[in-house]
Amino acid sequence: MSLKDKWLNKIKWDEHGLVPVIAQEVGSNDVLMFAWMNREALAKTVELGEAVYWSRSRKKLWHKGEESGHVQKVHDIRLDCDEDVVLLKVEQAGGIACHTGRHSCFFQKFEGSAENGEWQSVEPVLKDPESIYK
Amino acid sequence: MSLKDKWLNKIKWDEHGLVPVIAQEVGSNDVLMFAWMNREALAKTVELGEAVYWSRSRKKLWHKGEESGHVQKVHDIRLDCDEDVVLLKVEQAGGIACHTGRHSCFFQKFEGSAENGEWQSVEPVLKDPESIYK
Repeated sequence: MSLKDKWLNKIKWDEHGLVPVIAQEVGSNDVLMFAWMNREALAKTVELGEAVYWSRSRKKLWHKGEESGHVQKVHDIRLDCDEDVVLLKVEQAGGIACHTGRHSCFFQKFEGSAENGEWQSVEPVLKDPESIYK
Repeated sequence: MSLKDKWLNKIKWDEHGLVPVIAQEVGSNDVLMFAWMNREALAKTVELGEAVYWSRSRKKLWHKGEESGHVQKVHDIRLDCDEDVVLLKVEQAGGIACHTGRHSCFFQKFEGSAENGEWQSVEPVLKDPESIYK
């Protein structure tokens, strides 16, 4: 076991070798997005100082912002009490984390009751996605 | 399909019928914890106005604070762009979300480099867990 493995081995990777990751904005403390990392993604995140996730749909490493320019500069990395969830504190380039062009991915707000509820979009689109992904 | 199902069906439940949930403190915006919900847990959370999770280890509903008194009063429920992650904004009773007696579960901070990193506890224990779970 190399030194490199030691801190990575502390994490309880799930049955797919992944750990859930929450990205939170430094300063505002807004929760920006949620994604997954494997060992390589987390090691690269530390090396680069920018968030690198594992894309479960594309099955490859995803350096956040590689297409959009909306990179996430990492200020702090936290691990929870059960050692199976990671929290990143990041500086969000462009102030836009979401592929819809919004600040945060969590823009749908529950309104109503359990018997008659709905999800309403409550955050503005800051940039047209078509101009983000050319 | 009842009205009740409509908003629950918008969520993309995973292969175990669960959705990941982030609990964030109203006001400070601190990320307190991460857990899971099934349909029943989320419906109960809305009905009660307090966070009810699904305990994967105990395989049953878990009304957060049922033993510790550290209930989470729900102020806002958000859904992300992919409709597979929920964010709760909560008022944390006692200011303690973690079973270790800390404010937040994310108290282990990464220090060092990819080659030689470690996790250090950086948040104080506010209450002895033995006095929380009698």
